[in-house]
Amino acid sequence: MPVNLPLPDFATLFPIAGVRIGVTEAGVRKVGRKDLSVVLIDEGASVAGVFTTNRFCAAPVQVCREHLATGLGVRAMLINTGNANAGTGADGLARARSTCRALAQQLGIDARQILPFSTGVIMEPLPHDRIEAGLQAAITDAKPDNWLRAAEGIMTTDTVPKAFGTQVTIGGQVVSITGISKGAGMIRPNMATMLGFIATDACVSQSLMHQLALELAEGSFNRVTVDGDTSTNDSLVVIATNKVGHAVIDSLDSIDGKALKNAMLGVARNLAQAIVRDGEGATKFITVQIEGGRNAQECRKVAYAIAHSPLVKTAFYASDPNLGRILAAVGYAGVDDLDQGCIELFLDDVHVATQGGRNPNYREEDGQRVMRQSEITVRVELGRGTASETVWTCDFSHEYVTINADYRS
Amino acid sequence: MPVNLPLPDFATLFPIAGVRIGVTEAGVRKVGRKDLSVVLIDEGASVAGVFTTNRFCAAPVQVCREHLATGLGVRAMLINTGNANAGTGADGLARARSTCRALAQQLGIDARQILPFSTGVIMEPLPHDRIEAGLQAAITDAKPDNWLRAAEGIMTTDTVPKAFGTQVTIGGQVVSITGISKGAGMIRPNMATMLGFIATDACVSQSLMHQLALELAEGSFNRVTVDGDTSTNDSLVVIATNKVGHAVIDSLDSIDGKALKNAMLGVARNLAQAIVRDGEGATKFITVQIEGGRNAQECRKVAYAIAHSPLVKTAFYASDPNLGRILAAVGYAGVDDLDQGCIELFLDDVHVATQGGRNPNYREEDGQRVMRQSEITVRVELGRGTASETVWTCDFSHEYVTINADYRS
Repeated sequence: MPVNLPLPDFATLFPIAGVRIGVTEAGVRKVGRKDLSVVLIDEGASVAGVFTTNRFCAAPVQVCREHLATGLGVRAMLINTGNANAGTGADGLARARSTCRALAQQLGIDARQILPFSTGVIMEPLPHDRIEAGLQAAITDAKPDNWLRAAEGIMTTDTVPKAFGTQVTIGGQVVSITGISKGAGMIRPNMATMLGFIATDACVSQSLMHQLALELAEGSFNRVTVDGDTSTNDSLVVIATNKVGHAVIDSLDSIDGKALKNAMLGVARNLAQAIVRDGEGATKFITVQIEGGRNAQECRKVAYAIAHSPLVKTAFYASDPNLGRILAAVGYAGVDDLDQGCIELFLDDVHVATQGGRNPNYREEDGQRVMRQSEITVRVELGRGTASETVWTCDFSHEYVTINADYRS
Repeated sequence: MPVNLPLPDFATLFPIAGVRIGVTEAGVRKVGRKDLSVVLIDEGASVAGVFTTNRFCAAPVQVCREHLATGLGVRAMLINTGNANAGTGADGLARARSTCRALAQQLGIDARQILPFSTGVIMEPLPHDRIEAGLQAAITDAKPDNWLRAAEGIMTTDTVPKAFGTQVTIGGQVVSITGISKGAGMIRPNMATMLGFIATDACVSQSLMHQLALELAEGSFNRVTVDGDTSTNDSLVVIATNKVGHAVIDSLDSIDGKALKNAMLGVARNLAQAIVRDGEGATKFITVQIEGGRNAQECRKVAYAIAHSPLVKTAFYASDPNLGRILAAVGYAGVDDLDQGCIELFLDDVHVATQGGRNPNYREEDGQRVMRQSEITVRVELGRGTASETVWTCDFSHEYVTINADYRS
């Protein structure tokens, strides 16, 4: 059961002029599953991507990077579930390229204008023949209001499709932003998303797109973690179709640039947090907020030490205010000259620890009350400076073990 | 159920001349549990300790460091379970000191000749009064052949007492080595042990003891991991009572020094591996061996990435040869210029992946056969150099979640 994650609100999933999406059942791994999606993009769109830092990055990620580097422009994306095409060596690269060639032929474009994405089991050969056989049906299905269907089409262990949209006024014109994401396990920053796609009909110069994609990732997908495993396939793609008639945005510091970025960040955060809310076996949504650090980096270290600790995560699962485990995680986060005597710990509004020890006024029943909630904020004050960082995570349950012990079955 | 970990063999738990151990039930947290031990050490012993790197180190760890630094010599150790006296601030320090003073008074020694150890729940006040009330009974119980009873007396979530001993001939004289350890969760290198005590009646100069303790920790307790959480209380203490009449060892490179160190390392490794075999919820004992690295540090990074991955650990639990998860962990281990095309992966004798992709000769049933075993070696060849490292870990089961969700109940 995901944590406070309703089904997407179809009314907010605005069609984006210049983007059509088609989904089909290609039988990649199992029959009767929506497992193949194509996203068709009109000529002239600005597109950028941010990809996994995993050195074992998947074949499609390598192909995406190559194709983006050509500067030929992106005209289509091709997404399959059921197989990640990772840990597949040179053969995996050949199969990824083969699917791009097949789609390019059907669309009459250059194969290098296609970005391929795969998600699913690692180290098994991609059944590229079945994917290629399914392309025609996916193309036939393509239409602008297919975002929800695409969100379903990219699910693996997700229990809920993840899609959000919003609108914002830029230069007096209403622009729309819609995005989808997938992912529930193997989630850790750099990138956390597994897959995320966000499109807008706003006008953004191609030269600004990479910076926009990076900033969106930093404020959303790179701040969530489920289990600390960094996927081989994580990708976030941001598309601006340049269809609305406002002045082209070429700086994120301009009024229009800020307005668009903030609206897109809202969508990206919703998509990223949805991944945590739907974290494998998650029963609670935890916000970890670190304040008073010397710099952002040490705040992130502490935040992730807490967010990755199996002991902290199982205590949240049990609603057990065994909060010393949080202090222990702060202590081993790798901030070498940390003075434990300066640490303050809060659980929502409850002041649990002060000066590195239990707060004399802390009562177990207050901690217990907060621990029973489905949404909890852990706040740690380091008392060393003014930097702060926030990450989002979930608890660690029996169900996580069950899901990951059974995933391939 | 621990993995291939029988009860200690009483016949190998040699009494160490100059060491007497007493255990009692002091009711620290619950009644009817052996929870208080004293280790009485004759004057003239050489003693050194290695302690947690956690910045939130517990009060007793801080007191141990202070007391060792005085150079007054160690005459007793005081160990309680049920309460870790960590995350307790200045009040916790005062309580730890109080227990040392009480024991010093009864033994007629200086309080700074006592090393205190606490293990159990974090961030709760140490019931020092109950500990002090129990001291007389523990002292009365003290005798040389009490090692097994002490191993029982320091257990928390351990299911099996951990004790090993051996003998070795040094300069024509038989010397004995006996050690105990405890720990099952919150186990990660630097230090992994939670608590370990190893004593020998051999003669070792005090000036050599710290180096000996460090090298023993590096080859044993610092190479095991259960859940990646570094405890606030981890401590390893090494004692040489200097009772056997061979020439004093003052170098680990001498013939005698090597012989003693190797024998002690054997005991330390058994004690450290016992912690993994008894890892919370463990059903399998996994050896992770990394070869062909440029240096030891990068080998350890890769080894721990594999050993800490919840996805890898749940796959072992399920006996599912979902081995791409191991490649993914290699990829995110933080070796920035790793070339995935050079990676070879073996599961025991089965060659799973070659040149970064699935080995064409690999058959799923071969992987399956190895995964079903209770002891498995994962071997990764990085193809970059000649360094290698080995760490030991266990799988990740439903039972781990149950134990850690229920620990305080």
